[in-house]
Amino acid sequence: MSNTTRRGFLKSSAVATAGLATGASAAANEPDPLITDVQDWASYTGAGVDETPYGLPIRFEADVRRRNVEWLTASPISSINFTPIHALDGTITPQGCAFERHHSGAIELSKPDYRLMINGLVDRPLVFTYADLERFPRENHVYFCECAANTGMEWAGAQLNGAQFTHGMIHNMEYTGIPLRSLLAEAGAQMDDDLWVYVEGADASSNGRSIPMAKALDDCLVAFKANGEALRMEHGYPVRLVVPGWEGNMWVKWLRRIEVVDRAVESREETSKYTDVYEDGTARKWTWVMDAKSVVTSPSPQMPIEHGPGPLVISGLAWSGHGQITRVDVSKDGGMTWETARLGKQGDSKALTRFYLDTIWDGQPMLLQSRAMDETGYVQPTKAQLREMRGENAVYHNNCIQTWAVNEQGIAENVETS
Amino acid sequence: MSNTTRRGFLKSSAVATAGLATGASAAANEPDPLITDVQDWASYTGAGVDETPYGLPIRFEADVRRRNVEWLTASPISSINFTPIHALDGTITPQGCAFERHHSGAIELSKPDYRLMINGLVDRPLVFTYADLERFPRENHVYFCECAANTGMEWAGAQLNGAQFTHGMIHNMEYTGIPLRSLLAEAGAQMDDDLWVYVEGADASSNGRSIPMAKALDDCLVAFKANGEALRMEHGYPVRLVVPGWEGNMWVKWLRRIEVVDRAVESREETSKYTDVYEDGTARKWTWVMDAKSVVTSPSPQMPIEHGPGPLVISGLAWSGHGQITRVDVSKDGGMTWETARLGKQGDSKALTRFYLDTIWDGQPMLLQSRAMDETGYVQPTKAQLREMRGENAVYHNNCIQTWAVNEQGIAENVETS
Repeated sequence: MSNTTRRGFLKSSAVATAGLATGASAAANEPDPLITDVQDWASYTGAGVDETPYGLPIRFEADVRRRNVEWLTASPISSINFTPIHALDGTITPQGCAFERHHSGAIELSKPDYRLMINGLVDRPLVFTYADLERFPRENHVYFCECAANTGMEWAGAQLNGAQFTHGMIHNMEYTGIPLRSLLAEAGAQMDDDLWVYVEGADASSNGRSIPMAKALDDCLVAFKANGEALRMEHGYPVRLVVPGWEGNMWVKWLRRIEVVDRAVESREETSKYTDVYEDGTARKWTWVMDAKSVVTSPSPQMPIEHGPGPLVISGLAWSGHGQITRVDVSKDGGMTWETARLGKQGDSKALTRFYLDTIWDGQPMLLQSRAMDETGYVQPTKAQLREMRGENAVYHNNCIQTWAVNEQGIAENVETS
Repeated sequence: MSNTTRRGFLKSSAVATAGLATGASAAANEPDPLITDVQDWASYTGAGVDETPYGLPIRFEADVRRRNVEWLTASPISSINFTPIHALDGTITPQGCAFERHHSGAIELSKPDYRLMINGLVDRPLVFTYADLERFPRENHVYFCECAANTGMEWAGAQLNGAQFTHGMIHNMEYTGIPLRSLLAEAGAQMDDDLWVYVEGADASSNGRSIPMAKALDDCLVAFKANGEALRMEHGYPVRLVVPGWEGNMWVKWLRRIEVVDRAVESREETSKYTDVYEDGTARKWTWVMDAKSVVTSPSPQMPIEHGPGPLVISGLAWSGHGQITRVDVSKDGGMTWETARLGKQGDSKALTRFYLDTIWDGQPMLLQSRAMDETGYVQPTKAQLREMRGENAVYHNNCIQTWAVNEQGIAENVETS
């Protein structure tokens, strides 16, 4: 945008906003009391370093937290909560507000009590303690983890009013872990392409899933740290499986057992769940990879525009289970015209990428959309295109373009567009 | 290492360790009760998603926290605490355990009360509210922040026994902020190379520092998010200055004012403090850039080797204020011989880089050292070389090679080597 425009805007705004902030209706030539008076916080000594051995967000940020939606599932123990992606920026998700999805609740499992068994088609069945795992070469990678049901309510039309609820079943962390292939090699596992590994957790649900051997040998991690520190209890402490780019349900928490098998187990979690039922009743199956997807996080229903026309930063997240995000376009008119957004930085493969459109808002209503493209050339589809392909029965794997209607007051809401 | 070696080790160890873990002295042919019995945590439903709106580490990780050393300074309000780098892995530092250094304590400053003034040699003195700042184009970058006094006690010899205390005045986060140059341009600042910006905080200390215009226009950020979420109170909420690669004292928290001036202010924080006094009493001054440095975080005094000879992962951190880390070498014999370590991933410029040496421990004593090299070709010096250059009076800017002596029991301690 032109400096002139923004300058013109800020000359008035800085004062006006200051006026609002102090509750006064300061005219442009009145001084800002917060500048001319002695500032209270400059007149006392603050908190000491012995007061916060482990810190939490300041009280003013109390609304930036995980939220669950009670009517979505029967019980919080088999339910979900959502990452407050509307209020975050950059790409890393702090563990403290990273979404949870449990099938029988989050269990408390100590490192001394932890065991990982590898059995099945292996030369040497092994049981690893946590201390054993710490002796294997490890790697660091940033990956997104998205629940296959993320945005699932949108299949039926615009329902949940907020990016946290429509797209918040995702988080993005730097994992430290052991390549799964190293542990399979340790056990002398058979590694033919037509074999599978069946992975299960130590919780009551066990949440067993079958993973093709090729993926197990590619980039899966047996992870024990996220964003530098130990996994949180709700994310599988002390050890979870990381299956980069694939649906979150396969990222088995409290990882207990890895069995090498000659065919898929066809467990509950990969048959009655996490498959997509077509119009004719047949099911789309083995739909593991999360296709390219994006969402505008601000403005959004939980993040209205709180200023008038002029400079506006439109921001959001994009990701693809197939690799790197190469481009994100943003539309203000429901997809009729598009502008290419700026990427905060080149995102890692299979990790969240932040995008920005630095623009001027004319104060008129907008139909905000974002459209992600990945290194395979894939372009994020519209909801209509997705329904065309998948029908109306699907619950999972909704990666369609999201629309926020923004009115003259800057209020945004989730709407359905043709 | 050879698979045979590790295999031989693990066959016995898995069982033995299990024995220890369960308090039993299981012989190799006895079953592991944790595998054969029903596991308690598989027999109940765990915590629900409504129990943790904002999560904290599991109780088993309570020791992974910031710590302060009371005798180091007069009062906790003007003191420091240390990041538990010995217990972390990967590169990101969670905000909750990222070190603090205050000159008059951590203040509580709300977004509505926040103001940022730009004055001095500018066409248009401006006062920005927080809402104003949110309307400027922003960027995302991962940078380390290291206090100039980090490792300072080591000038006098090995004193603090633990990587947390010798090297823990550092953290590494993904920042979201506005390039300082954008705000200077907004105010119509003069930008000649011989000018400076004087930056100060809103706390009682104000902690004023002079920054050369070239650096202010280069990569400095006016930041409001770290690792995705708002800055924590103790890290300058709502806005701090990020000065990539330069000493932490210049990363002014609760940023209140930026004045464009025609000469350095020569404030307390850049004259009586943060300068390095030579033998002859003269001072090394304007020593802003943190030179290449590294430390082995495990094994280390707080992280003993808790197993016998065999596979051992030696891990640590390396960083340089001049750019990217290109190579890290590790020595087991106090610097007589070196092995090149593996980098967890190519680190960002002016950000922490994780290194690993996957090795076999013969059970003999080691003198562990690490040596970092950066893209400028600079090689991290020994303590002797640094004393040769700087003398014995210095307090700040100690980037010398650190030595841990590890004994046959795997216990490590901080030692002085010639």
